[in-house]
Amino acid sequence: MGTGPGVLLGPGDDAALVAAPDSRVLASTDVLVEGRHFRRDWASGTEIGRRAAAANLADIAAMGGYPTALLVALCCPPDLDVAWAEELADGLAAEAALAGAAVVGGDISASPVLTIAVTALGDLRGAKPVLRGGARPGDVVAVAGRLGYAGAGLTILSRGFRSPKLLVDAYRHPEVHYAAGPQANQLGATAMLDISDGLLADLGHIATASGVAIDVQRAALDVPAAMVDAAKALGVDPYSWVLAGGDDHALAATFPPYADLTDDWHVIGRVSHGGGVTVDGRRYIGQKGWDHFR
Amino acid sequence: MGTGPGVLLGPGDDAALVAAPDSRVLASTDVLVEGRHFRRDWASGTEIGRRAAAANLADIAAMGGYPTALLVALCCPPDLDVAWAEELADGLAAEAALAGAAVVGGDISASPVLTIAVTALGDLRGAKPVLRGGARPGDVVAVAGRLGYAGAGLTILSRGFRSPKLLVDAYRHPEVHYAAGPQANQLGATAMLDISDGLLADLGHIATASGVAIDVQRAALDVPAAMVDAAKALGVDPYSWVLAGGDDHALAATFPPYADLTDDWHVIGRVSHGGGVTVDGRRYIGQKGWDHFR
Repeated sequence: MGTGPGVLLGPGDDAALVAAPDSRVLASTDVLVEGRHFRRDWASGTEIGRRAAAANLADIAAMGGYPTALLVALCCPPDLDVAWAEELADGLAAEAALAGAAVVGGDISASPVLTIAVTALGDLRGAKPVLRGGARPGDVVAVAGRLGYAGAGLTILSRGFRSPKLLVDAYRHPEVHYAAGPQANQLGATAMLDISDGLLADLGHIATASGVAIDVQRAALDVPAAMVDAAKALGVDPYSWVLAGGDDHALAATFPPYADLTDDWHVIGRVSHGGGVTVDGRRYIGQKGWDHFR
Repeated sequence: MGTGPGVLLGPGDDAALVAAPDSRVLASTDVLVEGRHFRRDWASGTEIGRRAAAANLADIAAMGGYPTALLVALCCPPDLDVAWAEELADGLAAEAALAGAAVVGGDISASPVLTIAVTALGDLRGAKPVLRGGARPGDVVAVAGRLGYAGAGLTILSRGFRSPKLLVDAYRHPEVHYAAGPQANQLGATAMLDISDGLLADLGHIATASGVAIDVQRAALDVPAAMVDAAKALGVDPYSWVLAGGDDHALAATFPPYADLTDDWHVIGRVSHGGGVTVDGRRYIGQKGWDHFR
């Protein structure tokens, strides 16, 4: 904790001091509340720490930036196991390190409800930030990272199961492609965000902010065999996970049609004039299926 | 909310973008939990917002820096009055503006316990940060701001009273001398912090970090008539507020003996070889009085 290439002063004084080489700093805050965003019987302290860090670090990557630092405010019930809190700190530090950042500060208070508020800082290295409002008709829509894995894992855990491991582990500790964010910036991404509410809901944020329509091609979406099997066993449409599941923190971006995308980015759709988000031209309305009249 | 001289991109995207002119950014986080750090029947939403902001902004000033931005994570009980939450946001924004900063981002979640986690960012404008460990024998100790007022207000409220207003209001919304922080930096302050645990406890942090002894002159401490009267009425030693009360967020700093201090700074003691903190050469041990044997 507290060391890293951009950490000029770590924890212990009134404030930390972090390098901001391009004279601007990206900053984002997310809060996780026990029972609402995580359960201690569904994931270890380390995994919850990694998830809390990932949710914030992904926001920095989704601006096209490089994470530099995390600050953590932790509210603990008085009976919280010290070893669990140390695991949490380890998970936060490990995920920060994966993204090139460090935990530089924090605060701890007692509280009846275990709550983890994380702030991430980041640097753009001289580049412009990639906002949500820049998508243009003709752009392609691409995703870096997994879709629906964490959502499937959450459904599996909430039904009392613990497998398949691929999906349950995806919920427990998302694998965020941090480097794909600044890479997209270099590739000319016109809009970007990280998927935390679900693919269609978040693409809806881009469509609204940009004043465009987005159509997703269902055939371009990867549905792994484990997800098909789990969906069948649980009586769920697997597309409800892929299209509406959050928590994987995949990055979604729009690029000019001529952009030469890297292997990290997988094209799943297209931007056109209009508004709203469709899948193969139809509106998806969740577990109920498809709305043919829009 | 979201506008200010250094705010390049305010709320609404994945992250905010804040100017960091000197290529470094100060960052500090504090969390306030209802029932522990504040009570809604003791202060308005606006006042609690101002206190939450002040606690963080003072940390930036105490490094010798200029606050630039706040990020706020708010956890609300489902039945929280919307008007109260708006008051809170107004208070946060108003206090940020007083310090030259703006609220640039945040997150909201439902929670059984009202919790406010605030992160403050700041800029040093090319100066070095003022740490806790730089005090040297021969330095003077000075304070900018009020001592014990908020602590007295808290005692008064906790005993069920609502006056004197001077002290109760000091608890409800501290008046922090933000400008005195960077000013101290320019005046050559060797160590600085903001007083949140109480004067003696926080001077103890400087003494420990710097490896020095600090003696406070009791005659230099201001005890206003309202505090003397309240202390008498409540059967309290007023020095328990002045020496051990927190929450005023006064700044305490050490300066070389030749420093030409401004009116904001009031000399209250001296640094010497040794360790620990004394008052007129004696150790203060709280409500019990003075320890003559140390």
